[in-house]
Amino acid sequence: MSDTGKSVYRLPEGSKEMKDLLGGKGAGLAEMSRLGLPVPPGFIITTEACRTYMRTGELPEGLMQEVAVHLRWLEGETGKCLGDPENPLLVSVRSGAAVSMPGMMDTVLNLGLNDATVEGLAERTGDARFAYDCYRRFVQMFGEIVLKVRAHSFEEALDDLKRERGVEQDQELSAEDLKGLVRAFKGIVEEATGRPFPQDPEEQLERAVKAVFDSWDNERARAYRREFGIPDDLGTAVTVQAMVFGNMGETSATGVAFTRNPATGEQGIFGEFLLNAQGEDVVAGIRTPKPLAEMEEVLPRAYGELLRVMQALEREYKDMQDIEFTVERDRLYMLQTRSGKRTARAALKIAREMAEEGLISRDEALLRIDPKGLNQLLHPHIDPEARLEVLARGLPASPGAAVGRIVLDADEAERLGEVGEAVILIRRETNPDDVHGMIRARGVLTALGGMTSHAAVVARGLGKPAVTGCKELEVDPGAGEIRLAGRTFRAGETITIEGSTGRVIAGEVPLVEAETNEDFEQILRWADEVRTLGVRANADTPEDARKAREFGAEGIGLCRTEHMFMDEGRLEVMREVILAEDEAALDAALARLEPLQRGDFEEIFAAMDGLPVTVRLLDPPLHEFLPGSEKLKQSIAGLEAGGGSPEDISGLRRQLKAVESLEERNPMLGLRGVRLGIVRPEIYRMQVRAIAAAVKSLGERGRNPVVEIMIPLVGFPAELKETRRQAGAVLEEVLGEENSVKIGTMIELPRACAVADEIAQEADFFSFGTNDLTQTVCGLSRDDAEGKFLPEYLHRGIFENNPFETLDRRGVGRLVAMACELGRGAKPSLKLGICGEHGGDPESIRFFQGVGLDYVSCSPYRVPVARLAAARAALTERRDGGERMYDGGA
Amino acid sequence: MSDTGKSVYRLPEGSKEMKDLLGGKGAGLAEMSRLGLPVPPGFIITTEACRTYMRTGELPEGLMQEVAVHLRWLEGETGKCLGDPENPLLVSVRSGAAVSMPGMMDTVLNLGLNDATVEGLAERTGDARFAYDCYRRFVQMFGEIVLKVRAHSFEEALDDLKRERGVEQDQELSAEDLKGLVRAFKGIVEEATGRPFPQDPEEQLERAVKAVFDSWDNERARAYRREFGIPDDLGTAVTVQAMVFGNMGETSATGVAFTRNPATGEQGIFGEFLLNAQGEDVVAGIRTPKPLAEMEEVLPRAYGELLRVMQALEREYKDMQDIEFTVERDRLYMLQTRSGKRTARAALKIAREMAEEGLISRDEALLRIDPKGLNQLLHPHIDPEARLEVLARGLPASPGAAVGRIVLDADEAERLGEVGEAVILIRRETNPDDVHGMIRARGVLTALGGMTSHAAVVARGLGKPAVTGCKELEVDPGAGEIRLAGRTFRAGETITIEGSTGRVIAGEVPLVEAETNEDFEQILRWADEVRTLGVRANADTPEDARKAREFGAEGIGLCRTEHMFMDEGRLEVMREVILAEDEAALDAALARLEPLQRGDFEEIFAAMDGLPVTVRLLDPPLHEFLPGSEKLKQSIAGLEAGGGSPEDISGLRRQLKAVESLEERNPMLGLRGVRLGIVRPEIYRMQVRAIAAAVKSLGERGRNPVVEIMIPLVGFPAELKETRRQAGAVLEEVLGEENSVKIGTMIELPRACAVADEIAQEADFFSFGTNDLTQTVCGLSRDDAEGKFLPEYLHRGIFENNPFETLDRRGVGRLVAMACELGRGAKPSLKLGICGEHGGDPESIRFFQGVGLDYVSCSPYRVPVARLAAARAALTERRDGGERMYDGGA
Repeated sequence: MSDTGKSVYRLPEGSKEMKDLLGGKGAGLAEMSRLGLPVPPGFIITTEACRTYMRTGELPEGLMQEVAVHLRWLEGETGKCLGDPENPLLVSVRSGAAVSMPGMMDTVLNLGLNDATVEGLAERTGDARFAYDCYRRFVQMFGEIVLKVRAHSFEEALDDLKRERGVEQDQELSAEDLKGLVRAFKGIVEEATGRPFPQDPEEQLERAVKAVFDSWDNERARAYRREFGIPDDLGTAVTVQAMVFGNMGETSATGVAFTRNPATGEQGIFGEFLLNAQGEDVVAGIRTPKPLAEMEEVLPRAYGELLRVMQALEREYKDMQDIEFTVERDRLYMLQTRSGKRTARAALKIAREMAEEGLISRDEALLRIDPKGLNQLLHPHIDPEARLEVLARGLPASPGAAVGRIVLDADEAERLGEVGEAVILIRRETNPDDVHGMIRARGVLTALGGMTSHAAVVARGLGKPAVTGCKELEVDPGAGEIRLAGRTFRAGETITIEGSTGRVIAGEVPLVEAETNEDFEQILRWADEVRTLGVRANADTPEDARKAREFGAEGIGLCRTEHMFMDEGRLEVMREVILAEDEAALDAALARLEPLQRGDFEEIFAAMDGLPVTVRLLDPPLHEFLPGSEKLKQSIAGLEAGGGSPEDISGLRRQLKAVESLEERNPMLGLRGVRLGIVRPEIYRMQVRAIAAAVKSLGERGRNPVVEIMIPLVGFPAELKETRRQAGAVLEEVLGEENSVKIGTMIELPRACAVADEIAQEADFFSFGTNDLTQTVCGLSRDDAEGKFLPEYLHRGIFENNPFETLDRRGVGRLVAMACELGRGAKPSLKLGICGEHGGDPESIRFFQGVGLDYVSCSPYRVPVARLAAARAALTERRDGGERMYDGGA
Repeated sequence: MSDTGKSVYRLPEGSKEMKDLLGGKGAGLAEMSRLGLPVPPGFIITTEACRTYMRTGELPEGLMQEVAVHLRWLEGETGKCLGDPENPLLVSVRSGAAVSMPGMMDTVLNLGLNDATVEGLAERTGDARFAYDCYRRFVQMFGEIVLKVRAHSFEEALDDLKRERGVEQDQELSAEDLKGLVRAFKGIVEEATGRPFPQDPEEQLERAVKAVFDSWDNERARAYRREFGIPDDLGTAVTVQAMVFGNMGETSATGVAFTRNPATGEQGIFGEFLLNAQGEDVVAGIRTPKPLAEMEEVLPRAYGELLRVMQALEREYKDMQDIEFTVERDRLYMLQTRSGKRTARAALKIAREMAEEGLISRDEALLRIDPKGLNQLLHPHIDPEARLEVLARGLPASPGAAVGRIVLDADEAERLGEVGEAVILIRRETNPDDVHGMIRARGVLTALGGMTSHAAVVARGLGKPAVTGCKELEVDPGAGEIRLAGRTFRAGETITIEGSTGRVIAGEVPLVEAETNEDFEQILRWADEVRTLGVRANADTPEDARKAREFGAEGIGLCRTEHMFMDEGRLEVMREVILAEDEAALDAALARLEPLQRGDFEEIFAAMDGLPVTVRLLDPPLHEFLPGSEKLKQSIAGLEAGGGSPEDISGLRRQLKAVESLEERNPMLGLRGVRLGIVRPEIYRMQVRAIAAAVKSLGERGRNPVVEIMIPLVGFPAELKETRRQAGAVLEEVLGEENSVKIGTMIELPRACAVADEIAQEADFFSFGTNDLTQTVCGLSRDDAEGKFLPEYLHRGIFENNPFETLDRRGVGRLVAMACELGRGAKPSLKLGICGEHGGDPESIRFFQGVGLDYVSCSPYRVPVARLAAARAALTERRDGGERMYDGGA
């Protein structure tokens, strides 16, 4: 029961604010009635009644009596009577949840027809064909939806009839034909259910209400809710309205329309209509509807009315509306209004223009745009209109789409890429030896590896689309071919990948290029005025840094130095560093690496001149820079068999020994980050020297490098103290005691959160590494979970979201909040940021706003998303009074 | 400066409570003086003065003036004067820290001698030989300790002289010889330092004081402190006393004694003495001392006095005392008293008998015994007297020691073991295929693997000693030999391993068998009366369960079901379960496994009849039950080369595919624990059915099984809810709705701690899995850290303790405390336990007492340790008023 103790609302009772109780459709109808717009009379059974039904399996006590009262009113209103053979009332029974789930739930039209009332309807309208058209539609709909008879049986009977009559279109069937069809349909129902088609309109109504309630829980509705994160316990409302008929001849019609163009956002109404049809004909696509503008010619009165109504609705809702209407004998009836779905491009234009028109405020404009949608504009993507042959799906490892020829070898990819050939590099998995090929490829596809695999991380760093962990992919470089979902493709054939969705598609597919425009820029300028969170970018290269600055980044929150070691020519030197057998060899190798690092730093600092750059010292375990032991063993066996030189063989053996000694069972939890800084301090020292030298050189040239050094994986305050001491000594040596370089740490271990007060004593700043923090807090390896059991966990609702995409607020969030509180408690000046992938996720940004971070940092392409999301978070927080997010719902 | 503003205390000022300021030796001397026992007059320079010296590098201002005042007093007291050639005062300058660090710091005796005073001493005592003996000792000691002249030079000169004179013993040298020796020694000093030996006694004293202060920071003292966890900033006191001489002829002597036997704890004094000698002769072992009892004959008066003094000291200290004394011309002087070190066996007897004598309370008796010492009594260990050739050290993976013939193959180990041969199974690393051999071996040694490797876990489960991760070990099964630290041993040769320490020793070494006795039992009975924490055991087999009950376990806190799958004959079935390709095959394999599990459970529940048994459902990732992919590839290659049957080859290929699909980058964070229960629910269902059937069958036979089912690795409440629902349904099916089986979870992920309130809603109990919790909180893989960078972290003091042995209180502890608070807050009846290895660690037990757990659970052999430690924790808590341990120091 609702709060007011009743289960039924009679139009125009209710308003647009009452979606939770009346459903979106019901609230829209109530609002339109309230505004005096033409709405067929009717009433709404509440979602509360549905919830009771779901809980108990029974309709709420007294519901049908309540419905009966309103039915009597409806009969009075229309002058017709349900079941009256003389003047029958027909009603529509429609579903409508608080959250729009288009097409997911069921609707029954023309309810009230039976063998007697159909005759009355024919009589009354003088149109037997119309009456039997309604009846056959009703029997089929009621049969399918309420009685669960297979749709196929009805369709077959209709097709048989049309074949028999030699016609193509339903409208070409005569009244007699339709009468026969009704008989056939009733026979189908009786055969399938063992009982004749129900003739009692009251029974029809009760069963239809139940069926609509039931449809809340059908398979496709549940799947839809899972997909869009809609709770399962909301339930649907049921709207019962007097039928109006778009199929009552050539002055009748039905249609859908938008108050602005949903694809481009441009002003002016936009829609389609069908003459002499009921709504489901538009949806089913049986006949091709006409552009709305043409309605002006055939139904000028109704068209004029429609324009006025749509204008009124947009003014009232202050948003672009998506409406459904019916014209019955030249008279307009509104059947639905709701905020229209739109492309990202349209969303930006509409919001901007409505704000400029003064219809909504700028803040409201910002709240209207889904930040995630901006991604569409920032990466090339597959043309939504294109016909696709999707062969397989992998993990959406790096966004964007790419078309190119299949190449199975990094050298070949480099060679072809250099001469301008578009290629997709396809490997079982990638490793540092593949990077030069990845650089020249348009995109990368791998069979193994998760969202944090080598391929994924490097591709994101390079800004190239990548699909990883594609289980249906088998790569056979020996044979020069791949197998994908049972089909074989040879190297050189063309393929398309979409890293934003993980799709792998045969052949060449048209792409839509990335495109930003003035709407985009204007909205982001407004966002910048509102937001309180800083937005930085994760960028490892000068190109990334420049791109990030273009997108409005206010600094670099994470510059991963290890990627600088992966480039060609450098990897070899890094290997020398790792394999050095004495101090002299080590020093020599480091001395070669240092100027390369310094050069990178200079370029990056210069690109970000005046803005902070947070450089993270070496993080990954050293074995990531070495070839795999498998491969080395093969090489050794090959040399031995082929008479390789003893020096070469012993060199490889030495490498193999080093690789094996560095192998780890759980590299995620092994010798990496600050642990390397402690155990092999010479690498950190070299890196700090390179940073200091770059700062010095730029300073001398009148530039303003603002640098922060970040120590990764600190769990124990003594680790930071020790590395800070060492780094500080090097900085002082190069830059003098009064240098401005800050030293801080990543917070990416639960222990770091627990002792954040102690760590804060040693740190100028914290940056939350929420990727690794999620892995350790949840005890969940992203590589091992994604593409394996994580989908099942999402499917079963054990995870509400992928915790690597949207921050796990209750778990990880609690520790983040704890660290903020302890850290700031110990050192109020502590700067707090986040540089995990969550830094670009709008939902997570809301959380970061809540715990009071200073900035978020994300990949350059997500910077605009983050700017908008941060603005929205600031607005929401202002509205909700800055509640403590981490204590809220998950 | 001390609180009272002075740096020097004059005997009998001070008392035994003032160890921190006066050092152990100084406080003991003060106490003895206070009691009127014969102590040479003297004074003590405080540890505070030492700390100032360490901080500033200078003696505290005014210290030497203060010393001078007390020297004047000492001269008055003795009637002698420092530096007076007529009647010289000689003093000893001894180190003495608050915590005993025997032999680690320096002492200078006979200070005050120079070329003039030595003559006076000879005159006065009428014994020139004695005087020059003192002088040569002083020059050497002062030379070595203060002037840093190499000891070797002095020893060589002495040896040369003895050779020249043709004598063996120092005492056989004449006064003239010694006089010449002094000259030689002074020459050595002058040559080494470039200056003559200092003749000014005041200078000698100041330099000696500084040297003793310096000795606090010498290499070996620092190493000792690291080893025993003594802080580096305590500093040492310096005791300056008038010399008494045990080397003044045949009525003089020096000796050490214990008030009870430190090896057995038996009553009656026990010690050794040397006639006509100074203290360092006893320590240096130059002459062989005589049993103390013989002193009664030669020095009856002094002996009688000694007995009385020792009795008084034991009464005063209420503990067994370790004393040093000197007899000068038949007069007894006490030089030191302290609580004596003792074996575990002696500790038990002494504490028990002192309590029974009424000298101390039972509580005090419990506080006197180091629980860790009990380990010695519970496992065979290497005879401490044995001469060893330690070849290498690995990780102390499973306690105890074993001697046996080297065997490199599990089948061979089984074969020889079955005929009663003692063998040590040596492998590069073990896997499930080796278990049958491990069962029959006396001990296990591996080259790879950490404290949680397969070898370590299985050996601990079997109660067999194991050394893992022995880096110096190379195993070559092909050649039938191993290499250890450069030496080669063939299979069949004898070797000894000690799993308690990780030592690997050549040949056969005598072992001391485990031995408990009535003292042990009595002390533990007293402990049981005092403790409030329950003590359970981790036990996976009926034998373990029985052993645990014998040792006083009050239940099983962790019964790991996976080990039941590792036994021969079962592993194959488990593999069938994992590799089953359809439901029928799966059901068939599970149906074979179920009765085996049920049989195990029946035996274990029966062994623990009436006591709770917590059964953990399957935890490890499935690939742990499968052969490695390397090995499979080899087998396939072998079959292919050798013409194996196509069926065998394709069977292995299927296995290989399954193995590869289950391989994980970070198995620690992968598909295991409850995740398996969700994704492959059939295994958990089978396990619960087996548990329920065992409960039912025992109940029907009048037994009283008390069973708790534990779900591992829960991080999300929904995981527990889902598996609990499934398990509950099976239990209900077999045992009816009113069954008493409880269902709870392990708390071993940081997320579980953060959402413990929500998890508590679904749980009857929590058991903290502190092994995995430590790994995830610290982001530290035990396998990868131990034997790799963890030792370096300990060495550098970044870790104060190995966090896998002693709970990391600040980090892991904070989360444990959080989980207790949230869990109990949400459900006050929630039972809380811990089943990680920390459950047997006394220091950790103190913490668990502090956060209010109900019980700890540890391996059977550690149950007595835990009982005692729990009693001590309860006593400490009572004394300290139940402070919140987790907020205390690390």
